[in-house]
Amino acid sequence: MNYKFMFKTLGSIFLIEALFLLPSSLLSIYDGDYGVTRAFVITIILLVCAGAILKAVSVKSRREYYSREGILLVALSWLSAAAFGALPFFISGEIPNYISAFFETVSGFTTTGASILTDVEAMSRGLLLWRSFTHWLGGMGILVFLIAVIPAAKGSGGSLYVLRAESPGPAVSKIASKTRNHAAIMYGIYVAMSLICLIFLLAGGMPVFDSFCIMFGTAGTGGFGILADSMASYSVYLQVVVTVFMALFGINFNIYYFLLIKKVKQIFKDEECRTYIILMLASSLVIAVNVMNQFESFGAALHHASFSVSSVMTTTGYSTVDFNLWPQLSRSLLLVLMLFGASAGSTGGGIKIVRLLILIKSGFREAKRMLHPKSVIHLRLNGQPVEENLIRGVHIFAFVYMSIMVLSFLIISLDNFSFETNLSAVISCMSNIGPGLGDVGPAGSFAGYSALSKIVLSTDMLLGRLEIFPMLLLFHPRAWNRAV
Amino acid sequence: MNYKFMFKTLGSIFLIEALFLLPSSLLSIYDGDYGVTRAFVITIILLVCAGAILKAVSVKSRREYYSREGILLVALSWLSAAAFGALPFFISGEIPNYISAFFETVSGFTTTGASILTDVEAMSRGLLLWRSFTHWLGGMGILVFLIAVIPAAKGSGGSLYVLRAESPGPAVSKIASKTRNHAAIMYGIYVAMSLICLIFLLAGGMPVFDSFCIMFGTAGTGGFGILADSMASYSVYLQVVVTVFMALFGINFNIYYFLLIKKVKQIFKDEECRTYIILMLASSLVIAVNVMNQFESFGAALHHASFSVSSVMTTTGYSTVDFNLWPQLSRSLLLVLMLFGASAGSTGGGIKIVRLLILIKSGFREAKRMLHPKSVIHLRLNGQPVEENLIRGVHIFAFVYMSIMVLSFLIISLDNFSFETNLSAVISCMSNIGPGLGDVGPAGSFAGYSALSKIVLSTDMLLGRLEIFPMLLLFHPRAWNRAV
Repeated sequence: MNYKFMFKTLGSIFLIEALFLLPSSLLSIYDGDYGVTRAFVITIILLVCAGAILKAVSVKSRREYYSREGILLVALSWLSAAAFGALPFFISGEIPNYISAFFETVSGFTTTGASILTDVEAMSRGLLLWRSFTHWLGGMGILVFLIAVIPAAKGSGGSLYVLRAESPGPAVSKIASKTRNHAAIMYGIYVAMSLICLIFLLAGGMPVFDSFCIMFGTAGTGGFGILADSMASYSVYLQVVVTVFMALFGINFNIYYFLLIKKVKQIFKDEECRTYIILMLASSLVIAVNVMNQFESFGAALHHASFSVSSVMTTTGYSTVDFNLWPQLSRSLLLVLMLFGASAGSTGGGIKIVRLLILIKSGFREAKRMLHPKSVIHLRLNGQPVEENLIRGVHIFAFVYMSIMVLSFLIISLDNFSFETNLSAVISCMSNIGPGLGDVGPAGSFAGYSALSKIVLSTDMLLGRLEIFPMLLLFHPRAWNRAV
Repeated sequence: MNYKFMFKTLGSIFLIEALFLLPSSLLSIYDGDYGVTRAFVITIILLVCAGAILKAVSVKSRREYYSREGILLVALSWLSAAAFGALPFFISGEIPNYISAFFETVSGFTTTGASILTDVEAMSRGLLLWRSFTHWLGGMGILVFLIAVIPAAKGSGGSLYVLRAESPGPAVSKIASKTRNHAAIMYGIYVAMSLICLIFLLAGGMPVFDSFCIMFGTAGTGGFGILADSMASYSVYLQVVVTVFMALFGINFNIYYFLLIKKVKQIFKDEECRTYIILMLASSLVIAVNVMNQFESFGAALHHASFSVSSVMTTTGYSTVDFNLWPQLSRSLLLVLMLFGASAGSTGGGIKIVRLLILIKSGFREAKRMLHPKSVIHLRLNGQPVEENLIRGVHIFAFVYMSIMVLSFLIISLDNFSFETNLSAVISCMSNIGPGLGDVGPAGSFAGYSALSKIVLSTDMLLGRLEIFPMLLLFHPRAWNRAV
């Protein structure tokens, strides 16, 4: 166990977080908001001190690190980044309860967008910007950023484990031979697409502050709004821009890489991308037909249906209407889409479409096996046979994912909210969406839940974002064993 | 494909069903109920004709049959047994809609106990007896009965496939070397335990007719009641007897076999049995504490909590109180227990405790593998390593089980019932329980669902009882390919 290396990297994370707090701090200085500026400054000082101390105690660290260190590092970084990131909300007094502030910040970094705020418009701009900025940071990953900018560790391939643990999806595909290159390319695509999104929003007449916040929430598939009605009061053009960009950020970034290197054939071969698009179009259509009589025209119904589907499937969570008031079929379908989530290698959450494909295919394979017990049948994805280990991993992932949801559902039931509220709250947090149905629907908030439930749901958000195992290892005594 | 053999066996099934209709027919003759007697007689005549024709066209059948025939046979037998079994309800006019009658009969044979009757007490005794008797027949399996009484097919081991397809649980354990012996032993234990249950009920002063019906529902873990309030108006003694016997019938019958051959050590080694008992006791206790203030004493709360837990975990579905009115934690816990179900090799439904154990263990194994990527770790159950194929099968089963529930949930959402009603209806039917929550709670019924939803839910009951794959194969064109 290379503790020193972990300390050192954690130190870097803290320093980077301090840096990332600067824009919001400057905005609050500009706004002349003394209390918030003070809160930001205190947080930055704490982060710099903590970072400096960690770096000081680990000067002479070995640079090799392995699977275990990489995975634990990811879990620790996210937990502590959220713990520090919650301080500005808490110290400024705008979220007077630390657990609520932690919930809000975890919700930000994990790109969930579930909020405990009952009046978001009362919050200062500096904090709103920080809140939305956490989405953007969490979207691509905090450590992936680190890997992209600092020199890679020698030999061990430890940074590959970091990348694996922090990137959504069953496995990082082998695009760039060097991990650092891969991380840098992904970040490059992320930044470029974010800027394009920003330009489209500004072009539609959205105020600069709003444009940045909404862009952060869209690119990170987070969904924190800055208005009480989320996206409802913006123009149809702006809603369409967000619909499209949410959908784009829910696609595996490798697809854009293929586009850059002009391997268009690869894109058409990608079954996940195809399924994602078909599922999105089909669901939008079903819901549009189902809610048609609630709108003035089928076009309007389709507009709001596609916005909601794009928002839910990409696990963003913005809303133009309160889909909680829609008929049962639409609500049920949205709930199921919440569970599926976006594509692997995107900024979105959920179980991921590619996992779903592997699960479905292995179901069909089992049926074939029952007919021909002795035949060997390979499971193919994008024309390539899938390793049995990967299939096994996906099945176990799906089961553990469901188990954690069931357990969380039971614990938060203690608060006596309705069945629908509890189940959708758990699915929404675990899949990093934001709003659910019932009391936690687009028009509601998570404010009513007890501290215990908030902690459970915060844990679910982290479990969902880091795809479970890094977080579970954190609580496994043997993972910390120095000798092994 | 050995079609002739399938016809022949199906013919036998029809003749046996005709035989099994006799007791109820005699009761309706005794009650002087002309309309019902007529309905029974017509059904019996139809069954005998159909059976005779099928047997006639398949006189010279080869006796070998394989996996595919065995599995298809099971699916076909259950479908047609239910289709014919529904006729007395329909012809007599007591359930004037055939789809509703089919739903009720499928619910009987699959030991679900979900009812579309809004006034069960208005139904004639002959039909009530037949309705409860289907539970008893379906509990151990219609084809298992056939295997137990007719000589086994030579060589091929086809009857093993039948046994596998009809018996709940991931795999039939190798107790008796001969399939027929195994089936006979299981049926023997079933009959003996049913008789003991009957004696206990009669000893408590329950009327003879009631005792038979309640015994059938308890032994088959079905749950059709004959009173509007299910078990609420019976004495505490009778409720306790049913609590205990439901729990006993939810245990793997192999345990009783071990008891018979005095291999007590094997029983204590059985992890499923241990988990089942611990889960039952712990859940009863949690719920008792949660509902305490709704009853006059903790004892009364524990009584009703343990009855409900035993009823739900064994997937029986009797009730002494309307647990739909309990606090959210208790309701959520009951819903989760519905999903888990009873033990493999019992008459109960659900995913089964042993599968749950394998799923949980494989989750822990995966965490270990992440720490030590190169080590080989065996998954052990009852001290024995579990085959990787079996683990894979369990994972796929769990996924397909959930997928079917999700799909059914979406379809029945069209009827616009609440979220809670729809989800619990699907879980309840798939796990063969009976009542759910909300509108389909213990005090409600499935009468409000549309014909489409009733067909979907009937299919779910059959899928749940036959553990999915036999039913799916029925709709797989290649399964019927004569050449293969």
